[in-house]
Amino acid sequence: MTYCIGLNLDEGLLFASDSRTNAGVDDVRRFGKMRVFAVDGDRVIVTLSAGNLSLTQNTLNLLEYRANHGDGTSLYSAQSMFEVASLVGDAMREIRKRDAPYLRDTGIDASGTFIVGGQIKGEVPRLFLVYSEGNFIESNPDTPYFQTGEIKFGKPILDRMVTPQTSLDEATKCALVSFDSTMRSNLSVGPPIDLLRYRRDALSIDLKMRLEDDDPYLNQVRSHWNDSLRMALESLPTPAWMTPQG
Amino acid sequence: MTYCIGLNLDEGLLFASDSRTNAGVDDVRRFGKMRVFAVDGDRVIVTLSAGNLSLTQNTLNLLEYRANHGDGTSLYSAQSMFEVASLVGDAMREIRKRDAPYLRDTGIDASGTFIVGGQIKGEVPRLFLVYSEGNFIESNPDTPYFQTGEIKFGKPILDRMVTPQTSLDEATKCALVSFDSTMRSNLSVGPPIDLLRYRRDALSIDLKMRLEDDDPYLNQVRSHWNDSLRMALESLPTPAWMTPQG
Repeated sequence: MTYCIGLNLDEGLLFASDSRTNAGVDDVRRFGKMRVFAVDGDRVIVTLSAGNLSLTQNTLNLLEYRANHGDGTSLYSAQSMFEVASLVGDAMREIRKRDAPYLRDTGIDASGTFIVGGQIKGEVPRLFLVYSEGNFIESNPDTPYFQTGEIKFGKPILDRMVTPQTSLDEATKCALVSFDSTMRSNLSVGPPIDLLRYRRDALSIDLKMRLEDDDPYLNQVRSHWNDSLRMALESLPTPAWMTPQG
Repeated sequence: MTYCIGLNLDEGLLFASDSRTNAGVDDVRRFGKMRVFAVDGDRVIVTLSAGNLSLTQNTLNLLEYRANHGDGTSLYSAQSMFEVASLVGDAMREIRKRDAPYLRDTGIDASGTFIVGGQIKGEVPRLFLVYSEGNFIESNPDTPYFQTGEIKFGKPILDRMVTPQTSLDEATKCALVSFDSTMRSNLSVGPPIDLLRYRRDALSIDLKMRLEDDDPYLNQVRSHWNDSLRMALESLPTPAWMTPQG
């Protein structure tokens, strides 16, 4: 499994992804799921991938190869993020056409998903979710974020807290709590966590870092969150019907 | 979908379940998932069901019919909760034998799960999870609770907070938060919430109530929890690397 989040906020974009892949519980490896295609002053494009690793990796390899060697539209020449999402979807279709029938033959899941976000000069920052089939949707103020992979454990905190007005700092904290909740409940999501922040109109990356499992701040988030939830639970009023009977 | 929780705590047992069933999003109905089989001073047995409604309902109908008309061991004559869990598993096997092939023929999921807990005079309180196949497992101090149905959204709060030493009051609050998180994120889980508390060795029900969507306490839990999480997030320290660049 995998867990990735992309948020499109007024202040900018936030991306976070875990680094665990597994083919069964006895074949666990470490693979980052974040890729960046950037030209300072012109564009910052970030992809987060979930699903079959060969599928998503080769989709990116194809995109990268074409960007460096092809003469058609590439991630570095696309004029809009819409075009970028189309390129990702098209590349995934190509790879799936090649591999999916063979995977299905042995009952292997041949699906993959991308969160694709960024800003190209002349546009506002945009965020897309590209499905396995190559089609895609774009975030809007009602739904300012996308998740892929093991999304459920970490969704409540995002649903409760994130709006387009959420600051990048708050959103970063919220994302780390969401990752902590997910990693606690699902072994197939694991550190390190890759984090990338992009400030609107900067056209260069604000922050890119990797938080290992023993990262001091991650530990702080964990213990602070546990303590806070315990306090929140303790401070919940006790209704009359709950007091001990007899 | 459905969401049910059963907890086995030092102080007693706690059960909670939602009341929504759906066959597609356009066929949503209200069906409680909690059933009680109790004889004051002798036994309190509670079942929570998830999965195919005809399967779980008819399993209970069969058990109830046999308890009232049969001459074999029934829910009212079983000498242990282990025997009760076996009876539930056997009844489910019987109903599945009758119906499952027909359901599978039209691609309908023929699975169901029960959380079965309670206390029979002479035993301690016990809690079981009965699988679709009729086999079952019992809770222990390492894992003092079971969930069925849409379990993921509401699992982090339970994972963080519940131990056997958790009081029934705390656990009740925790369960309501878990339900609130789940109902926010999944439309197929819905109110009213059925709640049942059983105090160890009481051999009668401590509290059984139904919380409708507009229940004042449920509203209080919702707003208190939202406010608390917001405060918890706001009070998270901001590390040096997070302060705005430039």
